[in-house]
Formats: sequence, structure tokens, C-alpha cells
Amino acid sequence: MVDTNKEDEKLVGIVMGSTSDWDIMKEAAKMCKDFGVSFEARALSAHRTPEELAEWMTSMEKRGCRAFIAGAGGAAHLAGVVASHTILPIFGVPIPSKYMKGLDSLLATVQMPKGIPVSTLAIGEGGAANAALAVISVLALNDDSLKDKLKAFRVKQSEKVRQATLPELD
Amino acid sequence: MVDTNKEDEKLVGIVMGSTSDWDIMKEAAKMCKDFGVSFEARALSAHRTPEELAEWMTSMEKRGCRAFIAGAGGAAHLAGVVASHTILPIFGVPIPSKYMKGLDSLLATVQMPKGIPVSTLAIGEGGAANAALAVISVLALNDDSLKDKLKAFRVKQSEKVRQATLPELD
Amino acid sequence: MVDTNKEDEKLVGIVMGSTSDWDIMKEAAKMCKDFGVSFEARALSAHRTPEELAEWMTSMEKRGCRAFIAGAGGAAHLAGVVASHTILPIFGVPIPSKYMKGLDSLLATVQMPKGIPVSTLAIGEGGAANAALAVISVLALNDDSLKDKLKAFRVKQSEKVRQATLPELD
Amino acid sequence: MVDTNKEDEKLVGIVMGSTSDWDIMKEAAKMCKDFGVSFEARALSAHRTPEELAEWMTSMEKRGCRAFIAGAGGAAHLAGVVASHTILPIFGVPIPSKYMKGLDSLLATVQMPKGIPVSTLAIGEGGAANAALAVISVLALNDDSLKDKLKAFRVKQSEKVRQATLPELD
Amino acid sequence: MVDTNKEDEKLVGIVMGSTSDWDIMKEAAKMCKDFGVSFEARALSAHRTPEELAEWMTSMEKRGCRAFIAGAGGAAHLAGVVASHTILPIFGVPIPSKYMKGLDSLLATVQMPKGIPVSTLAIGEGGAANAALAVISVLALNDDSLKDKLKAFRVKQSEKVRQATLPELD
Amino acid sequence: MVDTNKEDEKLVGIVMGSTSDWDIMKEAAKMCKDFGVSFEARALSAHRTPEELAEWMTSMEKRGCRAFIAGAGGAAHLAGVVASHTILPIFGVPIPSKYMKGLDSLLATVQMPKGIPVSTLAIGEGGAANAALAVISVLALNDDSLKDKLKAFRVKQSEKVRQATLPELD
Amino acid sequence: MVDTNKEDEKLVGIVMGSTSDWDIMKEAAKMCKDFGVSFEARALSAHRTPEELAEWMTSMEKRGCRAFIAGAGGAAHLAGVVASHTILPIFGVPIPSKYMKGLDSLLATVQMPKGIPVSTLAIGEGGAANAALAVISVLALNDDSLKDKLKAFRVKQSEKVRQATLPELD
Amino acid sequence: MVDTNKEDEKLVGIVMGSTSDWDIMKEAAKMCKDFGVSFEARALSAHRTPEELAEWMTSMEKRGCRAFIAGAGGAAHLAGVVASHTILPIFGVPIPSKYMKGLDSLLATVQMPKGIPVSTLAIGEGGAANAALAVISVLALNDDSLKDKLKAFRVKQSEKVRQATLPELD
Repeated sequence: MVDTNKEDEKLVGIVMGSTSDWDIMKEAAKMCKDFGVSFEARALSAHRTPEELAEWMTSMEKRGCRAFIAGAGGAAHLAGVVASHTILPIFGVPIPSKYMKGLDSLLATVQMPKGIPVSTLAIGEGGAANAALAVISVLALNDDSLKDKLKAFRVKQSEKVRQATLPELD
Repeated sequence: MVDTNKEDEKLVGIVMGSTSDWDIMKEAAKMCKDFGVSFEARALSAHRTPEELAEWMTSMEKRGCRAFIAGAGGAAHLAGVVASHTILPIFGVPIPSKYMKGLDSLLATVQMPKGIPVSTLAIGEGGAANAALAVISVLALNDDSLKDKLKAFRVKQSEKVRQATLPELD
Repeated sequence: MVDTNKEDEKLVGIVMGSTSDWDIMKEAAKMCKDFGVSFEARALSAHRTPEELAEWMTSMEKRGCRAFIAGAGGAAHLAGVVASHTILPIFGVPIPSKYMKGLDSLLATVQMPKGIPVSTLAIGEGGAANAALAVISVLALNDDSLKDKLKAFRVKQSEKVRQATLPELD
Repeated sequence: MVDTNKEDEKLVGIVMGSTSDWDIMKEAAKMCKDFGVSFEARALSAHRTPEELAEWMTSMEKRGCRAFIAGAGGAAHLAGVVASHTILPIFGVPIPSKYMKGLDSLLATVQMPKGIPVSTLAIGEGGAANAALAVISVLALNDDSLKDKLKAFRVKQSEKVRQATLPELD
Repeated sequence: MVDTNKEDEKLVGIVMGSTSDWDIMKEAAKMCKDFGVSFEARALSAHRTPEELAEWMTSMEKRGCRAFIAGAGGAAHLAGVVASHTILPIFGVPIPSKYMKGLDSLLATVQMPKGIPVSTLAIGEGGAANAALAVISVLALNDDSLKDKLKAFRVKQSEKVRQATLPELD
Repeated sequence: MVDTNKEDEKLVGIVMGSTSDWDIMKEAAKMCKDFGVSFEARALSAHRTPEELAEWMTSMEKRGCRAFIAGAGGAAHLAGVVASHTILPIFGVPIPSKYMKGLDSLLATVQMPKGIPVSTLAIGEGGAANAALAVISVLALNDDSLKDKLKAFRVKQSEKVRQATLPELD
Repeated sequence: MVDTNKEDEKLVGIVMGSTSDWDIMKEAAKMCKDFGVSFEARALSAHRTPEELAEWMTSMEKRGCRAFIAGAGGAAHLAGVVASHTILPIFGVPIPSKYMKGLDSLLATVQMPKGIPVSTLAIGEGGAANAALAVISVLALNDDSLKDKLKAFRVKQSEKVRQATLPELD
Repeated sequence: MVDTNKEDEKLVGIVMGSTSDWDIMKEAAKMCKDFGVSFEARALSAHRTPEELAEWMTSMEKRGCRAFIAGAGGAAHLAGVVASHTILPIFGVPIPSKYMKGLDSLLATVQMPKGIPVSTLAIGEGGAANAALAVISVLALNDDSLKDKLKAFRVKQSEKVRQATLPELD
């Protein structure tokens, strides 16, 4: 899945261990799209396609990538392996696993050894969306237009909470 | 604790819920210092001094702060409260708690709702050091000298692993 | 959702992080209603609408509020933030989260640091109902009519258990 | 252990399953003492001395007791059994257990069924102190002097955080 | 639910905290019935009907009851409270809870303090059936006919495993 | 370790996976000794000495054994294997493991499949003592003298709680 | 279920505690079949049919069996008991349990004491398939044709990941 | 650490993430040495020295390596990364981590996705020793002398259990 709103440049690399992770990880892609941040999303495995992963990362860096978002489940090594290939900021999304519901994914993503950080978000869809927001907060450091969009997003989000009304009790 | 290697400007805000968290959080401060990244470290509580926290954050933003690192233990709300006050990137460090050893701190830090990300590192000292490295990777996006230092750090770190030798079996 | 059985006075403030928590938190509202205890229920976020939350709490205290019930899920900071704004008694309800089923919510609610208590009830609907009962037990300390209702509730509840019969084995 | 600062009247009953829980539960007693709130502390077991427990509770209620704090470890039933004997507010303290470190105590205290609430605080010393503060917040609803003390405690507590300074990095 | 295959005598008391536990606990009743062991099953609550519970237990002991099986969920205190009323053997069944799936029930049942044992079986239906089998193994110590039935049950059970065939692979 | 207070007859078999479990399991032996109940304790492994285990069990049954207590740690299979060899009542004691502190031992002991019950006590010393008390409650069903001792033990235990006094606050 | 592609010889023994485990364990059988590795699959219980299990294992060893795969749930003792009967390599598969989702099965399989290893794979279907792949990697050490197949499997697997495409965002 | 009892050939590769893991992993080395199985042990990191790891593995395979044992802690990716580089059998050892005591290491090692198995042993020293025993059981498939040694080890181990005596009760 390639987003093409800025020619060739891809600011964010979104990678997941399997196409079945897309249901979760598309929330990261959607958020990038909503903010007009170019990205490229790929399903690549730390264990099954380590070389393609490395090649894709190199290609992404050439195309201006400034951060990676990596989502994986179970013994979730993807984010850590991505982190070992680059000094760009890495954000990890624990994908809910079938039986352990992502507790394994969370621990395998967040508990990285000193020296190779993976900045980890919550398990599941919300975490995927937040990974994109975290990247956007990084990009906004040097992009006033994006900063304004992020502020507007926050305002709108607060507004939505403010206007929400609870149903009447029966 | 104020680091003064760049006049007045403080690129990183390091905040913890209690002075007793300093043993862990000083690893973040040390890493910043090692990289020559200016920072200010404070013990401020989300619950006991919410106003001072907000004021300090405002002051930090005025002084050029570009990311916050927040460490707390137990029902660790500090990073989330910090995140609610700013659109700067926030990195959370789960402080090991006395009885639950940081499992509570980890979940209370990482499981943020959609819309307000806290990018979370590992429980304890390693996580604190990695939070600083994550911030440095963000700052390096626009600072070639820092990028070089980060690459050198990685090379040195690999070198250290490479040269480590295991003792002989008795 | 505003309950209007006593003019303007609202003895209990019920707050939740999102309207989606209402399915759980309405059990607290129902219990208040059943006991004729005035309350006001709001969806307000510790992170997205911190100011509205503070304002609402101030308004509630002006209208005679004597206790708050706060329900949130995941990195559930709401009850703790509510507690930091007031010296009124705070009761926390861990909302079941999608993947961790409320273990995260429970720890993030109950493991508060010394000095700022959040009195926490069970995960989910039962906990919400019990939060209201806990508040009612507090209000009953100075309200003999409420004390009688609470005793009657207990008697009726015991009666219900007593009269329950198990089906025959097939 | 009987506190005698108000003649015969005991506003708070503090009960624990074993004298070995005193190291934790004395934090509740100390907090009551600091606030000048009369209390009586007893080691009584839900399983070994159910009758003495019931008798003591009756005696406490006669002497003006307005809330109970109950601490127990492991399959911690004490708070629940206390709750079944009274309509007064009950606050539970999970005592850290030898091998499970209080996770068992927490779940056995907080996960009460609908109808019989136990308002639960954090595992260990902090939770014991907070249980007393929760009771004090309840008593303060009808005691302006206590309300002032509680506000002063909060102010002092914030002040302490404010004045805490972090050590210099070596 | 009263089983009437031996006049008035009830060898086993089966008690659960709520009629909703019957789906699980009926497996204990069925197993007793299959072995021709008289029993009486009741839904009685440690917290809501402590007196009825004690009275029923006294009545059961008068009618020759030789062991109790107690099932409860969440902060599962029932088995412990039953154990505190008698010196008969007590077997506990952790009922799966809605959100924690019985981990809370297991810990609240099994982690009893020294002096008051609750012999605990697995979470759920299998545990309920096994509680009955454990009681039957106790009764069989002094009942050769029951001993033969238990041996036959074991033989039949092994036979069933032996004759089970796996389906062909597609 | 052989107890010789009744000639040759051994009412209780106490078995553990390793001599290192003795520190925990001796609490079961002591309790038997205190009640004058004959027992034999052995360290035998389900995996390393399955035949000796079976032979010892047969020998024990010949010598009048009426119940087994089995303690093991980690992937604690001993109690289950013991249960598969006999129709006598089996009581399991989860031995605290080095890193998981007995959570693994507990689950591996208690979560037995339908048909082969292991009645499980708490993790550690208290569980070992309680396993003996559970066996004693079984033996007391047909031994009035033992029944009296058990009642006396309970009375004494309650007395001890009753007479315990809490230290004064400093 | 007997696979007959090599006359009488069965290189792999696949055993599970119950026919209900077949849904998971058939993934091991399928993988063997796909690789042309002869196997025999049986449902046999460590507790209910220990003798048949031992006999089947002896028979398998006579027929050239070189490794066993054992799957069980809950207090999963099967793999450990299998391991105690042989010096052949044993691979364990934790079957997801009804309420604990296989956390109990995992710990009861993997936490074996020193001296009797069970090499354990992931919970569920993926673990069953991987157990077969682990055995195939062992057999391939002395079977060049199988080594080629395993390499081809890996290549194909990588190819599949490589060719997978993510759907477009809506 | 290089073992030199067979010239140049190294049958087993033992790798760990850090020299601090040696205290645990040396148990694997010792076991190999005791069985006269040649091995080479290295501290190499999946994240810090991915290339050296790959090179060492290639070198090991050239020198006749037939299985790898990989130990790592926290977000333990080492075994999985090793597995992605080879079709040789991989055995994983979860190293106990500082705060989570190896639960994170276990899940990050064992929960591998379908297609890339890591056969995992218990947390800690026992798991390290067992990983070596698992490899030895694999090598013994084609080495009758090793098979005899393994049988002798088992016999001796059983003998040791058999001869162990429990201390007398005081």
C-alpha cells in the first residue's frame, strides 16, 4: 500500500509482520493520511524476509523516511529488528495475539535492552493510531503547518468529548 | 537538577513523580549529558502538584524544549498528564514499583487511549536510558552533529559487544 | 445526563472517560436513582478535556456534591486526576478494556501513590453499582432515611438469595 | 492497640488478619493519629475468630465507629466479611503476600460481587495510609475542622514535592 | 435442589454464591448423582446470607454431611467462610469470572492462610466435577462399594481414552 | 524420613519432587506429627524415578495409607502423576519456584483435567501445613479422637488470634 | 490416525491428551504430511492411560520413531511424562485452555526441572505446526532430501510474505 | 569461550545477548562439556551486532555446527533472529530479567509465529542445562556413544533421587 500525496518522498514507514496485522495497523495509515503525511506500508517479516526488510528500510531512508512504525504479535521481534537497522526513531505497536491477547506482544516489543529503544504504544487499534500521532508530533517539531494540524486535531478531539452526551437512564 | 551546557535553552524535559525515582531516571539525564543535549530534570507530581507541572512545562516550551521524558510508578499517570498538556513528543518510563515490580507502572503508562500517545520504554534503568536515546533520535533528525554522535554511539556499543569475552568454564 | 429529583443539588458526581463507558457506568447511575440520591453523570476526559473536568468538578462542589465516582479503562488516569482536584471521597471503577479485560484499568486505578487515595471497586458493571453503594454508605452516615433504605436494600438482597432455587438436574 | 485521644468514642475501626500485618497497617493508624481521628486497631481473623470479629464490630458501632479499614493477605477475605456485617463504609488494604506479592490479596479484596462493596486501596504501606486518608475524607464531609486539616495536609504535601530537589549528576 | 436417593441423609453439601454459578456447579451435583452419593445443593452467599449459610451447614452436619463443595467467583470468599464454620473437609471450585476468567476466583479460593485449608480444584466445569470426585475418594475410604464404583469409573474413563480415534487428515 | 509412632502403618504419604522441597514440605510432616498421625515422607520424581514412585505408592497403600500429599515446583507434575496411580485422595502443594515464585507450580498442580482431581492448597509453607490439615480433616471423619484434636487445634488457633496484641504506635 | 506413506516406519510420534486437542494438533500432523515425514498420531492421557502411553511409545521406538510431539492443556503433564519415558527429543505444544487460554498449559509444559527437557513451542495451532518444523529440522540433520525441502519451505514462505500486498485504504 | 576437545569442529553454538547472561548460560556449556560435545559460546546481540551474529553462525555451520542454543532476556529476540538465519534446530533459553523475572523473556522467546520455530526451555539455569540436554538428545540420534552417555546420565540422575534422604524433623 503506497500513499502518493507527496511525490516519491515517504516520511513514514509502516511495517507489520503479516498482512493479517493490517486490520490493526491501518489505523496508523489512516491517521497519517488524515494529516497529509506521506507514508508507505508494508508487510515484511523480521524472521521470514529479513533481507527485504533491510532493503525496504534502506530504500525508505533514501526517500526521506524520518520514522518507522512497526507492528507485530506474539514473540514480536519486528520493531526491535527494525530498530537495529537504523538510528531513526522507531515506534512499536503490539498486535493482539490470538490466545494471549497481546500481553506477549507488548512485553516482546517494549522490554528492549539498553541501547536500542523501541518507543511502544498501546495494544491494538488505539496503539496503531497513537503511533502515527507520536510520529506526527515528531515531524511537527519542524513543520509549523503540521503543528497547526495537530493542535487542531487536539481541539477537535476535546470538542468531541465536550459535546458527547450520555443517554437517559431508562 | 539543571544542566547548563547550553545557555538557558533546554531541549529535553525530564520529569518524575518523586525524588525517589531519581535512581532510575538519572540514567535518562546521564545519557542526555553524554550526548551534550541540554535538559532540565524535575520531580513533580501529576496529583500533588498539577499546577507546578503545567507551569514548568510552559516554561520548558518557552526555553525550546522539544520532548518530555516522564517516569512514574504504580498507577503511573504522570506521562499521560504531561501528554495532555502539550503536542510535543512524550516518552514514558515505567518505574519499578515495590510489590508489582513495574507491571502496574508499565500498563498505566503504555495503555493510553486513542488520541493522546505516550511512547513507552522498558521498565527501569534501561528504559530511562532508552527514553533519552529515543529523544536523541528525534533531535538528530534535524541535527547532523547529533546524528553523527548517535551513529558513533551505536558503533561503539557494537564494538563493546564484539570485544566482550566470556570467562572460561572452571 | 442529569438527574433532577432534588432541585439543583447533586450529591454525587459520576464521570467517565468516554461515552462508550456508559454501558458499565450506568449501573452506578441506576443505583443512585434507585436510592433517590441526586447525581450528575458526565463523560469527560482527564487527557482530552482536563479543563472542563476541573470546571465541572468545581460546579459540582458548589451544587453540594459530596463524592465522585470515576470510571475509565486502559491507562485509567481519570479517577486519579479527579482525586487530585478535590478532598472529597473518590471512588474508582476500572472499565474492562478491549484486550486486557480491565487488568490494566484496575492497576492504573488502584495503585495510587501515598497521599492521593482512589477507593477502587471491582472491574465492570458490578464495580460501578458497588461504587454507588459505597457512596450511599458514606451519605447514610448523616442521613437516617438513606441508612434505612440501605438496610432495606441489604435485607431484600439477602431475601433474594434466600428465595433463589436451583433448577433440577436433568 | 487503642488510641485514647477522644474518650471512649472510636471513629475508625482498623482490623487486620494477623499481627504480622501490623507493619503495613500501622500506616493507617499513624495517619489517623496524625489527623487526631480516634481509632481502635485489632488483629482478628475472618476465618479463625469470626465471632470475635462480629462482636468487636458491634462494640465499635456502639462507640460511634463510622468506617472500617480492613487489611489482609493471600485469599484476603477479611474486608469482605467485615462488609457483610455492616452498612458502614469499608475500605480494604491488600497486604503483600510472601510469594505473590499481593496480587492475590488485591484481587481477593477488590473483586467483590455486586451488592457488597469493599473500596480498595493500593497494595502495601501506601494503601494503608491512603485507606486512612479516604476515611478522613469521608469524616471531613461533616467536620469542618477535619476538612481544614485535610486541605492543609494536601498543601503541605504539595509543598514537599515542590521543594524537593534532585541530586546533581556525578 | 435436593437429591433424595438416601432418606434424609445428605453426605455432601454443595454450595455456590449465586444461582448463576449453577451452570458450573451442576457438574459436581451430576457426578454425585452418577455415583449414588446423596447431596444437597444450595445457592447461599458468604456476604449476603451469612446466617443462612451457617444454619444450612449445621443442618447438613446433622443430616450426616461429611464434606462440603463450595464454588464462587471473583473475590471468592465462600469456600473460606464455609471452612471457618466446620472441621469437615472443604473443596473449593473457582467459578470463571466475567472479565478475569477465574484467575481472581482461583487465587481468592486457594491462597488460604495457614490453619484453615480449602482444597481447591481447577477453574470451571472440570473443577466442579473433580471436586465431587475428590469427595467421593474421601467417602470411598470407608465404603467399599463406592471404592469399586470409583475404580470402575477410572477404568471406564481410561477405556474411553483408549477407544477414542482421531479423525483422518483431509 | 520415616515417622514411627504407629508400628508399620503409615496413614499419610508425603512426597516431593526433590530434597530441596523439604524446607516447604516439612510443614506438612510437622503438622502430621503434631496430630499423632503416622506418615512417611519421600523425595521421588515423577520424571526421574517414575517406577520408584509407583512402587512406593503401592507399598504405602499396603501399609494402610489413606491419602497422599504431593509437593512440586515449576512444571509441577508430581501430584498429577501420583493421582493417576491411585483412587486415594490427593492433595497438592505448589512449591515456590525460583523465578516465577510458584505461579507456574500452582497452575501446573491445580488445573487438572476432568476425571483426575488434585485438591490443591496455597503456594509454600502455609499450603504444606494446610495439606496436612486437610488430610487430618479427612481422617477425622472416622476417628473421634482425631476429630477432638482438630477441634482443639481450631480452638487454640482462635485463642492465639484473640490474645495477640498489636504493639503501640511510636 | 496413522499415516502410511512409509511402510510401518514412523519417524514422529504425535500425542495429545484428548481427541478435543486434535483441532490444534492436526497442524503438526499436516506439516509432517506436507514434508513426507511418516508419523503416527494418538490421543493418550498421562493420567488416564499411563500404561497405554508407555506401550505406544515403546512400539513407536521399535518402529523407528526419532522424536515425539506432545500437546496438552491446563495442568499439561503429558509432554513431561513422555519425556520421562525416553531419551528421544521431546517437543511440547501448549493447548489453549478454556479459561486461562493456555497460560497454564505453557507454564506446565515449559517449566520442566533440570534433567528432563521439554522443548516447548507457542500456544496453539502455530505452536503445533512449529513443533513439526522443529522435528523436521532435527531429521534434516541426516537427510539431505529433507534439508532441501526445508530450505524450499523457507524460500516459499519468504516468497509468500514478499508477494503479499496490503489492501488500499478506503 | 571456545571448547577444544574436538579439533575445530563445533557441534553446538551457544549464543547469548550479553556477557551478563553467562551466569545462566554457562550451565548449557557445562552440560556440553560433561557430555564431551564440542561447542563454542559467544555473546552477540541480535540488535547491536546483527552482522557478527550472522557471520559467526555461518562460520559455525562450516565447522559442523548442528544446533544452536540462544539465551536472552526481556524483549528476547536473539533466538528468533538466530532461527531466521538457519534451518538448524534452535533451542531458546529465557534469561531472567531484573524486574519481570523472565516472564517477558519467556513469552518473547516461545511465542514465535508459524514457520520459524524456537524450541524453548524453562527460565534460568535449569532451562540452560536442559537446552544442552535437548541438543544432546538430537545429536544422540546418530551417535550411539552419546546415546549411551545420555542413558547413563538419566540412570545416574534417577539414582541420585533414589538415594537422597530427607532430614529428620527436629
